[in-house]
This record gives sequence, C-alpha cells and structure tokens, in this order.
Amino acid sequence: MKRGNMLIAQSGGPSMVINQSLVGAVLAAREFPTVGRIYGARHGIKGILDGTFIDLRKETMATLEAVAQTPSSALGSVRRKPSAEDCVAIFRQLHSLDVRYFFYIGGNDSAETVHIINEEARKAGYDLACFHIPKTIDNDLRENDHTPGFGSAARFVACAVMGDDLDNRALSGVKIDIVMGRNAGFLTAAAALARVHPDDGPHLIYLPERPFSLDRFVADVQKVVKRLGRCVVAVSEGVADRDGTPIAAKFIQETDSHGNKQLSGSGALGDMLAGVIRDRAKISRVRADTFGYLQRSFPGVVSEVDAREARAVGAAAVRAALQGKASSGSIAIRRKPGRKYGVFFEVVPLRNVAKETRHMPPAFINRAGNDVTQAFLDYARPIVGPLPRIGRFRQMR
Amino acid sequence: MKRGNMLIAQSGGPSMVINQSLVGAVLAAREFPTVGRIYGARHGIKGILDGTFIDLRKETMATLEAVAQTPSSALGSVRRKPSAEDCVAIFRQLHSLDVRYFFYIGGNDSAETVHIINEEARKAGYDLACFHIPKTIDNDLRENDHTPGFGSAARFVACAVMGDDLDNRALSGVKIDIVMGRNAGFLTAAAALARVHPDDGPHLIYLPERPFSLDRFVADVQKVVKRLGRCVVAVSEGVADRDGTPIAAKFIQETDSHGNKQLSGSGALGDMLAGVIRDRAKISRVRADTFGYLQRSFPGVVSEVDAREARAVGAAAVRAALQGKASSGSIAIRRKPGRKYGVFFEVVPLRNVAKETRHMPPAFINRAGNDVTQAFLDYARPIVGPLPRIGRFRQMR
Repeated sequence: MKRGNMLIAQSGGPSMVINQSLVGAVLAAREFPTVGRIYGARHGIKGILDGTFIDLRKETMATLEAVAQTPSSALGSVRRKPSAEDCVAIFRQLHSLDVRYFFYIGGNDSAETVHIINEEARKAGYDLACFHIPKTIDNDLRENDHTPGFGSAARFVACAVMGDDLDNRALSGVKIDIVMGRNAGFLTAAAALARVHPDDGPHLIYLPERPFSLDRFVADVQKVVKRLGRCVVAVSEGVADRDGTPIAAKFIQETDSHGNKQLSGSGALGDMLAGVIRDRAKISRVRADTFGYLQRSFPGVVSEVDAREARAVGAAAVRAALQGKASSGSIAIRRKPGRKYGVFFEVVPLRNVAKETRHMPPAFINRAGNDVTQAFLDYARPIVGPLPRIGRFRQMR
Repeated sequence: MKRGNMLIAQSGGPSMVINQSLVGAVLAAREFPTVGRIYGARHGIKGILDGTFIDLRKETMATLEAVAQTPSSALGSVRRKPSAEDCVAIFRQLHSLDVRYFFYIGGNDSAETVHIINEEARKAGYDLACFHIPKTIDNDLRENDHTPGFGSAARFVACAVMGDDLDNRALSGVKIDIVMGRNAGFLTAAAALARVHPDDGPHLIYLPERPFSLDRFVADVQKVVKRLGRCVVAVSEGVADRDGTPIAAKFIQETDSHGNKQLSGSGALGDMLAGVIRDRAKISRVRADTFGYLQRSFPGVVSEVDAREARAVGAAAVRAALQGKASSGSIAIRRKPGRKYGVFFEVVPLRNVAKETRHMPPAFINRAGNDVTQAFLDYARPIVGPLPRIGRFRQMR
C-alpha cells in the first residue's frame, strides 16, 4: 500500500445522496493509516485547478453525519470536461499536495473526466490511483444495476405523481408531468410506482427510448379521457422525434462542455404539450407541471436503500484503492440473483462507464411504447422502498 | 336541536389536509343522535345537483383515518358558483333527502357558495343550517389568523426552496421559483423559512401585494449575483404590474365561473422571467421551476399543526351547528395572544369570509417590497413546524 494524501470531489448534477458517498469515502479513508491528508476540492476539478480545498479530517463526526443526510453536493459541483492543459495543471496541483489517491463522485461525464485524468497521469508517469464513485438520478450508467441517487429521485417522482393523480381525481382534466432524464427513461418510468388501484395514474408514460409522435400522444390521451374522464401523463424531458432530436431542444439552445443540451429548468415542453392537447383534443382543463430540480434536491424525500448504498459505494471505492485491488476503476453496483433484494460491488474499468449512457432495456417498456412493464416495477420497487399509503372511500371506487 | 340528515362536500383547490376536516366533521357528527344519515356529495355542489352521494356512515374507522392522512379531496371537488336556478335545484335535492345540516369545505369562493345557498334557503323558507369549513393553501380568508392547508403547503415550499438553494450553491447561477397564490403572497413568503445561514436563499421574494417591475427585478438580481455569485428568487404566480394585471395573465386566457384567471399549471411566467435575466443581465445559467400542483398534493409533506387544526375545525363546525349556536356561519381560526402558540375557533357570519380575499399585512413585507420581515417569520414558523436539519461543512461557510 502506497503512502500519500487523498483528494475527493463531486461533479455533475447533485442528488439526494451524493453526500452519503462523500462521507462513506471519508470515513473509510480514516481507517487506513497510509492515508495522510484528506482534501475535499471545491466544485470538482475546478477546485483542483483553482487550489481551493477543505481539510476533511478537520470536520467533526457530527458534521459529517449531518452533511450525509443533506441533499446536494456539499463540496460544490461543476460541469467541466478537462482539456489536455487542464490535466497538466491538475497533476501539478496533485503532485505539489502529494495526492496519490483521487476519487471523483459523479455520472458518466464525471467517469469520463476520471478516465482522462487517469490516462494522462499514466502518460506523465505520475503514480495516482484514480477512482470514480457512481452517482446519477438518471440511472444511466453502464455496468450498474442501478445508480446511487436514482432510488431517492424515483421516490420523489412516484410520490409526486401519486399526489398529482389524487388532485386530478378531485378536479378532472388532463395533467402532464415532465420528469428529468436527458437520455434514459428510468426516472420517468418510476412514475408507474404511484399506481395502487387499477384506475390510478399515470395512465400514459413516454420515454426517450421510443420515438415520440404528437399525433400518437393526442390519440392516446383522448382514449384515456374517453374511458376515465381524465388523464395523468408522465413525459420524460428527453422525449425525441424519429430523428432523435429532443422535442424540448427545439425551444432551448444552452449546451455544456460535455456537449449535452440543457433540457431542465424550463416549463416549455410541458406547456407546448398542454397546448397541443387543448387545441387538438378540445379539452379545456389541461395542466402541465415540470418537476424540475426538486427531483434531486427535496430534503427528506429519500429512499433508505439508496442512502445506504450510496454510503457503501463511497466506502467500497476507498477500500478498493487503498487495498491495492486495482490502480483505477469505477465501482459498479450489481444485484444479487434470487428473490430477496441485495447488492454487491465490483471494480470495473473506467472506460466501461465513461461517456456512454445506459438506456431502459426493451423488457421494461410495453409494446405500444406508452407505458412500462411489470418487469420494470419489480426492478424498481426495492430500490425506491415503500411509498406513502393512500386512503380512499370504499364507495368512491 | 333539530333532527335531520347531514350533507358535507368539498370544493375548490384540494389541499394536503382537507380530508382531515372532512373526517373531523364526520366523526363529530357521529356523536350526535339527532343526526340521521351523513351524505357525502361527490364533487361539491355538482354532486348535489347530479344526485351522486356516498353514505359516510358506511365507511369504517380505518378507512376514515386512512383518508384523513391522504392528500387531495377524497369526495372530489368542483369550481362552480351556483346560479339562482342551481339553488332551487339544490334545495329540491336537500329537501327530498331531508338534509337539515349542510357543510361545505373550501376557500372564499366556497364560502360565497354557502352564503348564496344560505340566503336562498332563507328566502325559500327551507330550514337548513349552512356552515362553511375553511380551507385554502393561499391563506387568504378574511377573519382567520391562518387557514387549514396553508401550513402544509408552506412546508412544501420552504423545503423545496431549502433543497433548491443547496442545489444552486453546488452549481451556481440564477434560480427562479414560481409559487402558487393568485392574490395573496403568504405561500410565496413561506420560502423565507428555508433560510438557516445568512447567505442562504431565497435572496429575493416577490409578492402580489406589491407592484412588480421587470427593471427593478433585473437590478435586484444583479445586485445579489454581484455579492454572492448566485441568486435564488421566489416569485408568486400572482405578481402583477402597477395596474394590477397579473404578469402571468398576459400568457393565459382560462377563467373559471367565479371570474378567477387560471394562473397555475403553466411554466410560462418562470420561463419569461428567466429569459429576461438571461438577456438583460447577461447571466448564462438561469433556471426556472414552477412548483405547481405538488404544493398542495405531495404525500407525506404535512405540517402536524396544520393537520391537527384542519381536523379540529371540521369538528368545530359540526358542533356549532348541532348545538344550535348559530344557524349559519364560517369557522374562523384565531390565534391566542401570548408567546406560546395556540388557537381557538369562532363562528363568524358567512358574508365576512365570502368572496373577498385577505392580503399579506404591510408589517409582513419589507420596505423595498422584495422580501418579508421578521414579523412574518414569527407568524409562520409555528404553523409550518420544524423543518429538516441541513448539514454544512464548517470550512464551506
């Protein structure tokens, strides 16, 4: 085991449990006498480049535990892909701090960043263990059964749609809920967990994995309204036409340095879809809500399984690095076979996780492409945990 | 005490605790042997006109308690002002069912409905006790210190902004959150409860009680961004220009039978304000979220004080009617004087509550018109209850 200091940072979109992974890693590192200082870089690689760090050995256990329970990225985050010059500057910083263990918590873009830094470190002959700790509410990391952050965000979406369906039942109409997920439909699909009774919404679910047609959408909604007198729809912000162009991208121009179009933080897609239903289906009460950033930041709405796994995966990364099992890698969450839910962790090569996204497997999507299957519900339920119990008058059924 | 059947219904926008009032009323009515059947009309006065009722004596205690914990209006709701002909039809129904006690749970429009029915019943010589049970997340009923539903919705808003501010701290920029409240700013003001540390958001709060100027808004945001490098803003959906025209009304046409413009269920106001900041203040990362219907329906986010008071106010209405204290009225919530929080209920004339709305008192709004005062925080805190604890690294302060 090599001696040296450690540096950890957070990157990409925050989640409800990304601080669990941070605290899990810090507490695991404290068990290894070979680890010297534990630096936390502020705002990901930006903090390394700017030389802005905090000393994570200085924070008390009480603070660490309070931070672990708190949503968002306590060290700050960044969306930035390092250039070749950035990497040179990063090594210079890490070298001057004698950092030999580097951990980066984030999604596939963050894994790409770790991969680039690892490759550049190798070329430069700098001995650095580089580990990626998975995080994304989108659940779209390859190699993983699911990712930390997804379970809690999915819980928010399921609860939101559950309440929204009750609201729509009281004052009928068409309700369109726009859910986060640029490329993968997992989070939107989680809306299906809101169903308890056969006539409960969401009645339709549209995912980025299937081409979205406005004609088809209008016809689907009309069919549900004819049957139930109302309709609740969950739509992914990433739904795209046959050519793969996101419908929302037609209204929005902003792009980040990883080349991703910014789709969140606007109600434009929901308002456009509501307008189409109002005009074409001649339905007067049509409403759209865009769940927005609450999905990843609402305090208190957490899946306990998700929080536990997020903590464990942070610790697993540190142990893999410190025990020298690998010099680099990402920690993947695998599901144990069998009926009882359980997971284990494996170190996988960074390039297997970096950049590319995982999509909803076809077995999770119904044939018509407007709902999920029982297989998805079975997959998602243990990750999200038990939902609030909904009471209903027997005679209202 | 006159013998007769009772009818209860729910009206207007649902809330997190409107079913507590329903169950409180039903359980109180069961204590009076003079009450015969307990009818629940589906979808407010629409159910009376259509003759669609359920028998609330038939529901078990377990169901009643489960319904009480469930958001939205379990009997269904309606937004409809009864015409003179409607009233004639309503009496015919009530008479044929021998209903002598009528309870209607809702806001100021629902109080107006009860007032009209009460007046028409008097003119028609029909002996009917007419009571309004207060409910509105907007907190805008006259005569009331606060209204059932507000505490829980305010809790949602405070939690949402708390999480949102943490998110904005991790990835800086300008964040605009649009909060419900057509005429009164109480719910938007509740965003201020999210603040723990001096630099916490919301940094600016805009209410319908003060004229909204785009120039002033841009200047305010620029000042906060200059100081903190970021800015979280809470804006009421009802903000209006100097002439009293809601800014959002410029995009929306829908109006209900009480003459209210529909402002919710669209992201247009937030998107417009975000566009203005992007263009005029030259800030690239600007996001807007419209909290929408989640504010009144998200399961599990409830103020315990609110739930308890909602239950008690339903019971108080039934007791006032059955004990013959008055032949009609609305139950008003008054705050006990003194430091310790407590409330009591009073029967007030229907006309005192009907139609008109209560606004934020000037003492709750800062001089600049872009924030609330300590007096508002002191007023709101006990109604909303303790919020989730937020952890933060000492060195990040």
